Amino acid sequence: MPSRFRRALAALAALSLTTAPLLAQTAYDSVDPFIGTGGEGHTFPGAVAPFGMVQLSPDTDTGCKIRECYGHAAGYRHDDPTIQGFSHTHFSGAGHSDLGDFLVMPAAGERVLLEPGDPRQPGSGYRSRFSHDSETAQPGYYGVTLADSGIRAELTAGTRVGVHRYAFPTGAPAHLILDLRSSLYNYPGKTLWSSIRIRPDGTITGMRETRGWAPARKLFFAMRPSAPLTGHSFLNREEKVEYRGFQGPSRGRDDADQLEGRALVARFDFGKLDRPLELKVAISAVDEDGAIANLDTERGNFDTVRAKTRAAWEQALGAIELDAPAPIKTKVQTALYHALMAPSVFSDADGRYRGPDDQVHKAEGFTFHSTFSLWDTFRAEHPLLLLVQPEQRNADFVQSLIASQQASPFGILPVWQFHGRETWTMIGYHAVPVIADAYLKGVRGFDANAALDAMVKSASYGAYGGLDHYMKLGYVPIDKEPEAASKTVEYAYDDWTIARMARALGKDDVAAAFEKRAGNWRNSFDAKTGFLRARKADGSFRVPFDPTAINYGSDYTEGNAWQYSWFVPHDQAAMFALLGGDKAAVKKLDAMFDFDNSKLDYSHAEDIAGLIGQYIHGNEPSHHVAYLYNFAGQPWRTQERLKQIVESQYKTGPEGLSGNDDLGQMSSWLVFTALGFYPVAPGSNQYVLGRPFVNRAALTLPNGKRFTVVTDGLSDANRYVGKVTLNGKPLARSYITHDEVTAGGELRFTMQAKPNRSWATGKAARPFSTSAAR
Amino acid sequence: MPSRFRRALAALAALSLTTAPLLAQTAYDSVDPFIGTGGEGHTFPGAVAPFGMVQLSPDTDTGCKIRECYGHAAGYRHDDPTIQGFSHTHFSGAGHSDLGDFLVMPAAGERVLLEPGDPRQPGSGYRSRFSHDSETAQPGYYGVTLADSGIRAELTAGTRVGVHRYAFPTGAPAHLILDLRSSLYNYPGKTLWSSIRIRPDGTITGMRETRGWAPARKLFFAMRPSAPLTGHSFLNREEKVEYRGFQGPSRGRDDADQLEGRALVARFDFGKLDRPLELKVAISAVDEDGAIANLDTERGNFDTVRAKTRAAWEQALGAIELDAPAPIKTKVQTALYHALMAPSVFSDADGRYRGPDDQVHKAEGFTFHSTFSLWDTFRAEHPLLLLVQPEQRNADFVQSLIASQQASPFGILPVWQFHGRETWTMIGYHAVPVIADAYLKGVRGFDANAALDAMVKSASYGAYGGLDHYMKLGYVPIDKEPEAASKTVEYAYDDWTIARMARALGKDDVAAAFEKRAGNWRNSFDAKTGFLRARKADGSFRVPFDPTAINYGSDYTEGNAWQYSWFVPHDQAAMFALLGGDKAAVKKLDAMFDFDNSKLDYSHAEDIAGLIGQYIHGNEPSHHVAYLYNFAGQPWRTQERLKQIVESQYKTGPEGLSGNDDLGQMSSWLVFTALGFYPVAPGSNQYVLGRPFVNRAALTLPNGKRFTVVTDGLSDANRYVGKVTLNGKPLARSYITHDEVTAGGELRFTMQAKPNRSWATGKAARPFSTSAAR
Repeated sequence: MPSRFRRALAALAALSLTTAPLLAQTAYDSVDPFIGTGGEGHTFPGAVAPFGMVQLSPDTDTGCKIRECYGHAAGYRHDDPTIQGFSHTHFSGAGHSDLGDFLVMPAAGERVLLEPGDPRQPGSGYRSRFSHDSETAQPGYYGVTLADSGIRAELTAGTRVGVHRYAFPTGAPAHLILDLRSSLYNYPGKTLWSSIRIRPDGTITGMRETRGWAPARKLFFAMRPSAPLTGHSFLNREEKVEYRGFQGPSRGRDDADQLEGRALVARFDFGKLDRPLELKVAISAVDEDGAIANLDTERGNFDTVRAKTRAAWEQALGAIELDAPAPIKTKVQTALYHALMAPSVFSDADGRYRGPDDQVHKAEGFTFHSTFSLWDTFRAEHPLLLLVQPEQRNADFVQSLIASQQASPFGILPVWQFHGRETWTMIGYHAVPVIADAYLKGVRGFDANAALDAMVKSASYGAYGGLDHYMKLGYVPIDKEPEAASKTVEYAYDDWTIARMARALGKDDVAAAFEKRAGNWRNSFDAKTGFLRARKADGSFRVPFDPTAINYGSDYTEGNAWQYSWFVPHDQAAMFALLGGDKAAVKKLDAMFDFDNSKLDYSHAEDIAGLIGQYIHGNEPSHHVAYLYNFAGQPWRTQERLKQIVESQYKTGPEGLSGNDDLGQMSSWLVFTALGFYPVAPGSNQYVLGRPFVNRAALTLPNGKRFTVVTDGLSDANRYVGKVTLNGKPLARSYITHDEVTAGGELRFTMQAKPNRSWATGKAARPFSTSAAR
Repeated sequence: MPSRFRRALAALAALSLTTAPLLAQTAYDSVDPFIGTGGEGHTFPGAVAPFGMVQLSPDTDTGCKIRECYGHAAGYRHDDPTIQGFSHTHFSGAGHSDLGDFLVMPAAGERVLLEPGDPRQPGSGYRSRFSHDSETAQPGYYGVTLADSGIRAELTAGTRVGVHRYAFPTGAPAHLILDLRSSLYNYPGKTLWSSIRIRPDGTITGMRETRGWAPARKLFFAMRPSAPLTGHSFLNREEKVEYRGFQGPSRGRDDADQLEGRALVARFDFGKLDRPLELKVAISAVDEDGAIANLDTERGNFDTVRAKTRAAWEQALGAIELDAPAPIKTKVQTALYHALMAPSVFSDADGRYRGPDDQVHKAEGFTFHSTFSLWDTFRAEHPLLLLVQPEQRNADFVQSLIASQQASPFGILPVWQFHGRETWTMIGYHAVPVIADAYLKGVRGFDANAALDAMVKSASYGAYGGLDHYMKLGYVPIDKEPEAASKTVEYAYDDWTIARMARALGKDDVAAAFEKRAGNWRNSFDAKTGFLRARKADGSFRVPFDPTAINYGSDYTEGNAWQYSWFVPHDQAAMFALLGGDKAAVKKLDAMFDFDNSKLDYSHAEDIAGLIGQYIHGNEPSHHVAYLYNFAGQPWRTQERLKQIVESQYKTGPEGLSGNDDLGQMSSWLVFTALGFYPVAPGSNQYVLGRPFVNRAALTLPNGKRFTVVTDGLSDANRYVGKVTLNGKPLARSYITHDEVTAGGELRFTMQAKPNRSWATGKAARPFSTSAAR
């Protein structure tokens, strides 16, 4: 019924761009969790609560080798024919991967296979074929029919608990398989240890320790089925064990209540059931008691948890009331949904969590969050969450970052952290702009001095990413450290945000030191070629130089000189001056977008997707670039490019994302852009104006005020902004400030078919640049 | 000076058996930690506090394969030419092994090797040759000169802290190596994970998780050197890693402050030192914070800790004041020393510990102890500790056992537990007699009902050791479960102790049920052959039958029918009746001791050492057997056999023990026997009288009273007890009761050259048997 109703509403919505809100599809119903589950998106369709610790989702394949793994970073690929099972932890849109912890699969009948089997050979294992027709996904809910067994499988999740519901064919004995060998990016030797046991009260607990993307990651679980066990079997499939040792009660039998080892698989029997079987599962990084206590946070049944999580999603998605044409509405609502998943809650209900030192800590007065994909998310994901999530959530992020720094064996802030553990992935110290941006935008509830201390320490740890050289030379030398050009400019920007926060805290000495460092981007910029280039320790630029070359471990990080040369978010004016002024800058921007790639081959590089010339929307370094025309006084060019990008890079359907969603960064770009503004330089407290793609968007801000974007004359033909008013008064500049947003009010765009070549062209009307700071 | 003084005293003592106490060698000085470090003893010479968590001792070789490992169970073999390093955890006398955690080795000079090297090739690694002449060992102290480097190495230990002291050759740069790859019984793949880091305050912390004898055992450490580091290097020597992953700051350099991996080795540099370097090391099974807090329990320097531990040893050894001829005094004092090592303290200073479920628990109101070698120690080690250690220590053991049962994934008491983890080694549920004996002897301070519950559960867990069959058939059937004959009789005895404790608690139903089970030994006894034999499920005895056959996985556990047929400690009279009465029993005992082994070969079996005919003193099943003549009314025969055993099985020097000391059981046998009595049936509250080997022994009991054994006429010629008095009154029976001991008083033996064939021959004068219970 709801889905028929939804289809009717969608049809209605398609009839007119001015459908009355009363009839509009709700925000919740507009979300399509399948967007990004094909192609390069790496999202998952399963059940998760906003920022939930548990991401319970189907895995279509986990037994893969490294390059084949890439496509299965989220466990599920929309074009796979079978489902292997349902596991409780997933990244949304990551490039590299891990997780897939605690895979559960139901089985029906007398014969239960304990190996996953080959997807090309139906019946060779416990995996099952499925049809997309039988699939339903909504925020916090996923359902599918397993074609081989006829079992209807449904998933929902609370913050720390996943709930499974399996309806077995009548008369068939019901079983569950728990395969502790299965995980994402699963290599031989990944599982260091695992255990499982049935406690006297029927609770099933256990753990797994894996060495994957994160080193020695421990995760515990507790699960309770809704029906009593009629039998079970615990097996260790490990071969060639030097130290099988003394196996105790489990020696020679599989019905003991406990087993430890490196290749465990369990079967649970329930006999014939007259109602669906529910299974509640909680996880904890601390210990089994933590998992049990987390389990107890959700006392209701499947439907109760589903309804509670639906309400949580409706509230979270409700931060933006959206009136937009159907396809863009689906895309933006789904983007907002994807932006509300990470960083994820990671502390247990009692506040305990495992930190970057692999030790247990307790979060006092905050909820510890992890899964910080900071190289991606400092750009737009965190700025978006500052507008759509309560101050407490954003303060939690900052407190989690500070706590991580304080517990870090290296004494520095997270780089790419998940499940409390550091992966050292990507570059920069981008926890720094996240904290600075939050502080400068008024988030409190954390110790600002401790935060600044953590930021300075992270920017001064010589052993990390060539920082010792950077501090000595003013740039990272490529003959000492790979990806030196990218590191230099990202460090410089991060340094600028430290300076901004230090200045706000009255720490003028710190501010001065880091303002100086903020200018280091110049040291790697070659004015002669007009490109950012890697320099050697002797000061010379590395040759040969090809601005289109993309190589891992090369001068740039997942990109080349074309994308990286623009990374001076805090001093775009100075960079334009080096290029030769506004005209030269615009010419170079155009050259980038209009570049002819026909003779290039980037198939060797990960994360290079969504190309528009040398602009690569599928990866983050390009994300602010379309907005840069504003800095040259040509906002109408930004407006053109945004239409080009939105239309080519975001689609409905599984292939809807042109690159990895990267824990919400790709999606957050779309949410901001659809609303008509974008945080080009987090830390500046400015949003650069683009052009809206929605009729109306009303933000309910963390302070309770409402900020509304209205678009007059939105249509395919009206590609340009003719006029902008803020609270009814004409706005002559191409940016708005954070204070203007949080004061509440109305930002109104009037669209037109022709460019307005006189609006916001002057220097004073342009967005923030250090060299032109007002 | 002390050693010269000691030698002088020893010479004096040797002059006369009646040396005045004033001149006698002190108990502390009489201990020779080298006894048992050669041959089959498996003891270690290093530094340990009484029941200390840390056993800091030299390892002469760790890189061995399984059979070669056996001889290195304690890390040190007296006949090895080199020392590899000094590690912090060791078993005293175990048959199987593990531990050897956190091996430290000093190095001097510019060139530091980070591989241990080949003992046959001096200079090929960091190991060093040494001479026994340079070695000194006392309780809580060990010193040796490392010949290759000239470094003088000394070790001492507090309860939770080990302290190293290294005097480097003048002018040579000082280094320490910490090799996290090294451990005892080290197989490829044993280390699951490890980490090391230097904290900002200079404390070095880390952990190692190993899969050895115990599964997935985690141990953390914290260490502080007395001099500041001038440099360091952390390396991961692991090869063929599928998931080396992102190495962060440590990528390509070895001077980062942290490293994780599976094959870590660290070098710490101190430059040239003008005084010895001290290194304090604490361990914790909980976390690094636990190790740091443990480290802080010893704030003094090497000498302070050494003096404190010496005082603790003097107090512990002082429970028995001994006046005896020099060789026996050394043997008995050393035996008492070896008996005072385990079970070991295992909870941290704050009470936290890791339990059998691998989870962290907190000991409230007691100190958690682990390293329970129960199949060995229920016999004489625990009974001895009930006489020489405070009630609190014994209550701690019981509380640790109960807490382990409550946290056990199987819900049963420990079988062979160390570092909190279960190894499932050996057979029986011998925590049961330990608890029953303690309770019946008046130890309180634990929940007796919870204890009984734990005992009953352990005796009723069907999946363990064929208990399901035992409960159904009244014996363990050999076609269902190996070592069935041994299991049947050991279960029956354990059951009897449950019955005894249940009766004392007024739980008459439990008592009746287990009294019935206590008779199950009969179900596996073949009166026709006069041997305990394994029966099949159909009731027939397994054929062929050879009472001299010893095989692993056979009908008996580390023994054969000759040794095991006597295992009815609680009903020896009934067993004698089955044999045909006293005369037949004595004949069979003699046949056992006098058996001609010349045609047998037991080289294939572990732990078969110390043979006197088919009596095998080197392993536990025989330990009570020499006392059984008393049960046939012929105590003079016991007296003869004891002399034969003491003289042939216990010697001074490294080869002084004829078998594994088994965490003090071999030693405890000697202490009791030397004092003239032995606990044949723990739970009976009786000690069976043998004959003393000391002139005088004064026990200071836990209740503060003194019980003194005096021997008149002790000499080599006077092999027999002529007369016994208790508090001056003639004692006509061949046993004393626990109450008589704890009341304090004097037990006086008068020795003579001829047997007294009339003393304690009658039924009423014989020790306890259920069937003859008075």
